[in-house]
Amino acid sequence: MSERIYGRRPVAEAERGRRRVHRIWRAPDASPEELERLSGSPDHQGVVAEVDPYPYADPGSLLEVEDALVVVLDQVQDPHNLGAVCRAAEVAGASGVVICERRAAEVTAATAKASAGAIEHLPIARVRNLADWLAGAKESGAWIYGADENAKTAYTEVDWRGRAVLVMGSEGKGLRPRVASACDELVSIPIRGQVDSLNVSVAAAVILFEAQRSRNIGTG
Amino acid sequence: MSERIYGRRPVAEAERGRRRVHRIWRAPDASPEELERLSGSPDHQGVVAEVDPYPYADPGSLLEVEDALVVVLDQVQDPHNLGAVCRAAEVAGASGVVICERRAAEVTAATAKASAGAIEHLPIARVRNLADWLAGAKESGAWIYGADENAKTAYTEVDWRGRAVLVMGSEGKGLRPRVASACDELVSIPIRGQVDSLNVSVAAAVILFEAQRSRNIGTG
Repeated sequence: MSERIYGRRPVAEAERGRRRVHRIWRAPDASPEELERLSGSPDHQGVVAEVDPYPYADPGSLLEVEDALVVVLDQVQDPHNLGAVCRAAEVAGASGVVICERRAAEVTAATAKASAGAIEHLPIARVRNLADWLAGAKESGAWIYGADENAKTAYTEVDWRGRAVLVMGSEGKGLRPRVASACDELVSIPIRGQVDSLNVSVAAAVILFEAQRSRNIGTG
Repeated sequence: MSERIYGRRPVAEAERGRRRVHRIWRAPDASPEELERLSGSPDHQGVVAEVDPYPYADPGSLLEVEDALVVVLDQVQDPHNLGAVCRAAEVAGASGVVICERRAAEVTAATAKASAGAIEHLPIARVRNLADWLAGAKESGAWIYGADENAKTAYTEVDWRGRAVLVMGSEGKGLRPRVASACDELVSIPIRGQVDSLNVSVAAAVILFEAQRSRNIGTG
């Protein structure tokens, strides 16, 4: 079993990443038509690769380090949003991303493209039941923050040190009640404009970079 | 002269925004084919509107308030990136966005869509010469920060109080030398992963929200 990815950065990152690259087609050796057929997308940027299936991480491994910072996505269904969150999380130095097995985007070639190849380096784990995983994370000493636009506490007001998990809901719907109730605390990003929400990858990035900033200076 | 925009949120925000909405077509009164023909896009979400041309702001007006926070885009050419930056800037409470007249994306229906309608509320000004506008901004007392991935100073280390301008370069190319030299200080976002850059809208959001956070608690 193998699959195909496309695009300059996704293929370059796969070459220095964790999964085996079996074959690469490039323009001009391959025609634009052939590359589009091989990749199934007009966004191939002249390069397509055949690679091993995406190597999902063990969900239990993400919180091993003492200052783990993990992003959990509750039912984010757009593969581009998943990829954009992964890009931001990898650059911010997050330990990994947890996604659901059902009713959620999985890691596809479109995700790889939207992540600029970040998925090749960032551990991504799939879990059957998010609330169960969160319960286990709590037992391991992690503090669980859920992003909720109605929360009274701002993301800048909490202590991000130690093991921390940030749960982000799907655009438009937010967190499911059972997931929200599994969080230790809900935090919001203060809205200063008239449009009331950020793209999920932008919201995740704003919170993750603040978590890293506050960890580095010490807080609380 | 009028133009068309499409999508649920862009049209809803236009209705409570600054420009006149002449006519709205909605499904199921209009067929999917008609909506796609009217909008020129498959992303219409069942609604298309005919509106006045986009009302660009006076470039001189953006720095009028004492704590103005303005984003300047140097040659960002993708209308989606322009829209995504505008959405983040509007939600973060920025005073406005400045774009170039040439070699840069202008505000189109695709920009409106990517901004989730934020362009209807956020002042956006076009200037012929960015370096000249930055020189004028400096004269008015603004401090000019340029985002540069090689800068030694982190965006978290500078004083964002007072009138401030954040200049972002195009993805892949960064700031042009003449624009970089018109900045008072260059700042970077620390990269903690292996992928070396953020999407321009994510980078802008991370810096803008930090600027607002640090203004609210006081710094320096």
